[in-house]
Amino acid sequence: MEAFSDGVLAIIITIMVLELKAPPEADWESLRPLIPVFLSYVLSFVFLGIYWNNHHHLLQAVRRVSGGVLWANMHLLFWLSLTPFATAWMGENHFASWPVAVYGVVLLLSAIAYYILTRTLIACHGEDSTLARAVGSDSKGKVSQVLYIFAILASFYRPLVSCGIYVLVAGIWLIPDRRIERVITE
Amino acid sequence: MEAFSDGVLAIIITIMVLELKAPPEADWESLRPLIPVFLSYVLSFVFLGIYWNNHHHLLQAVRRVSGGVLWANMHLLFWLSLTPFATAWMGENHFASWPVAVYGVVLLLSAIAYYILTRTLIACHGEDSTLARAVGSDSKGKVSQVLYIFAILASFYRPLVSCGIYVLVAGIWLIPDRRIERVITE
Amino acid sequence: MEAFSDGVLAIIITIMVLELKAPPEADWESLRPLIPVFLSYVLSFVFLGIYWNNHHHLLQAVRRVSGGVLWANMHLLFWLSLTPFATAWMGENHFASWPVAVYGVVLLLSAIAYYILTRTLIACHGEDSTLARAVGSDSKGKVSQVLYIFAILASFYRPLVSCGIYVLVAGIWLIPDRRIERVITE
Amino acid sequence: MEAFSDGVLAIIITIMVLELKAPPEADWESLRPLIPVFLSYVLSFVFLGIYWNNHHHLLQAVRRVSGGVLWANMHLLFWLSLTPFATAWMGENHFASWPVAVYGVVLLLSAIAYYILTRTLIACHGEDSTLARAVGSDSKGKVSQVLYIFAILASFYRPLVSCGIYVLVAGIWLIPDRRIERVITE
Repeated sequence: MEAFSDGVLAIIITIMVLELKAPPEADWESLRPLIPVFLSYVLSFVFLGIYWNNHHHLLQAVRRVSGGVLWANMHLLFWLSLTPFATAWMGENHFASWPVAVYGVVLLLSAIAYYILTRTLIACHGEDSTLARAVGSDSKGKVSQVLYIFAILASFYRPLVSCGIYVLVAGIWLIPDRRIERVITE
Repeated sequence: MEAFSDGVLAIIITIMVLELKAPPEADWESLRPLIPVFLSYVLSFVFLGIYWNNHHHLLQAVRRVSGGVLWANMHLLFWLSLTPFATAWMGENHFASWPVAVYGVVLLLSAIAYYILTRTLIACHGEDSTLARAVGSDSKGKVSQVLYIFAILASFYRPLVSCGIYVLVAGIWLIPDRRIERVITE
Repeated sequence: MEAFSDGVLAIIITIMVLELKAPPEADWESLRPLIPVFLSYVLSFVFLGIYWNNHHHLLQAVRRVSGGVLWANMHLLFWLSLTPFATAWMGENHFASWPVAVYGVVLLLSAIAYYILTRTLIACHGEDSTLARAVGSDSKGKVSQVLYIFAILASFYRPLVSCGIYVLVAGIWLIPDRRIERVITE
Repeated sequence: MEAFSDGVLAIIITIMVLELKAPPEADWESLRPLIPVFLSYVLSFVFLGIYWNNHHHLLQAVRRVSGGVLWANMHLLFWLSLTPFATAWMGENHFASWPVAVYGVVLLLSAIAYYILTRTLIACHGEDSTLARAVGSDSKGKVSQVLYIFAILASFYRPLVSCGIYVLVAGIWLIPDRRIERVITE
């Protein structure tokens, strides 16, 4: 399961760069319209990197896998696979309201899918398992979901505020998930 | 063999999303023509997820691999690799007759290729092997093939009925292949 | 090295299918111009399948890897990576002379690169190693290279004869490399 | 971490070939405008091959991985993922000044990211570890960075000189990283 998920995540990350199309002219000005596309790419690269990182740590605590877990994982990969689309739409339209909102929806549904995956894994391992203690109260996950909802609503008034919130959430997560590392080390 | 198949399946699933092209406008209406493309994507994502799932379970019961098995696997990957094409054609033409029929043909030939793979594996392991008992009578596989043929014929009269049948088959398979899991656990 | 090569081969095989672009119309006639593109795809799929198969068998006999081996492998992957380009050019131009010749050149250079890889591996393992005996005289490889050269020359007179030769070579190789399997079993 | 990095590198290498678009005509002349695109592809293929090779050798000396290491690796993959964009821009504009400079910037930032990765790994393993001794003074890496800076500046006067410098740096690295191999063998 990890090899397949790693493969899908690697491909999602890499095909996003296909949206950075080389301009036909060779001067510096022709790169300027690519700046918002590039910034969107950086943001999505970081988000997918965070998912890969946390997913990787999560699976290290996994001892058994059920059919439900496989599908919960598939469900997470589905929403993550929409990231290149949302990234391209947001970047090409210079962070306009609707694309920024749709980007937030994809982030929110990915976060919910990750939450479902952790719950399915805990149901499979038991509430007092290493995995359950490692996931813990998942306050970061809950805060992120609230921030995403706020950002989606804000995008119709001030889409750049929403983008700021996305950057903020990425910052919260960039601090790696030490909870799981700590409990495993114990 | 599993790593290579996983890789091919991961790439097939992910390049399908390239058909979801970001519209040049930033408003909500511009997403509407993408709805059938999106629905086709969801359907194909589920089908490829089912194949990955069942393929993964099947290979867990495999003890030896012959040249014939490698090519039966290649043959399955060939038909599955046509899924992005059939998905794009069906989605972009809003579920018109011919695309829906071709989509069904790709599903049918993939199902037949999966059947050939199981028979080649059983020939290699013996009729009384764990693998042979795990595959069993494969009634789900047979029912699916009959339903695909029916859907291909129906597509020239009522293509949406065919789509309904595809969703039905996906539903039948979403219940994971517990037969193999059960026999392995025994 | 095997994981990386498997990944590259899986991606080369799968991105070839991106050349099969879904036509904008939904009728049967619109598929007709895709037939040569489809046939080219089938041919290249079989060739890449053969390379994966033989590469897989070859690496099973490998005991050590040097820097030279890594680069000989990279060199093989380089020529194989040009297959999607040659396939697309040949299919879209309905098997015209130059594209058929270029396709043959890519096949020939891939075959030579595979030969170099086997020689580098044998130099690393010794002439009396299992690997050296498994590779043996490699008469299939030599015959293929002669046939490719003949097909490249023939393409300027009768390109369809060249295509027939490519199919013939694929047929020779589809019989899996039992030599290596046999020696390993011994 | 290695499987994921291998996957990303395999995909980056392979999607670069998508820039080699099959021309609509079937004659020899139609290939001529592709020559600079092809040469850029060869250069980038060699650079990514070098990174894969050195990364592979480096990870063989790795004993433990921290969150910081995972992100230093992600950071390297980010700059490498921009290679297809820089390659396409440079090839399509026949090695004009700005594209050649941007290509050099991507190479330079990748080299710096690789340096950061080695420092993070050494910080994690200790200055007297096998890994630290294997990386050594990294004079090749330092020379490359100086050459890249020189090539970026030169690109605004004589871009072909810059390209010559890139080829020179690739030549320096093509000699595989025997330092690490040697220390590991010891």
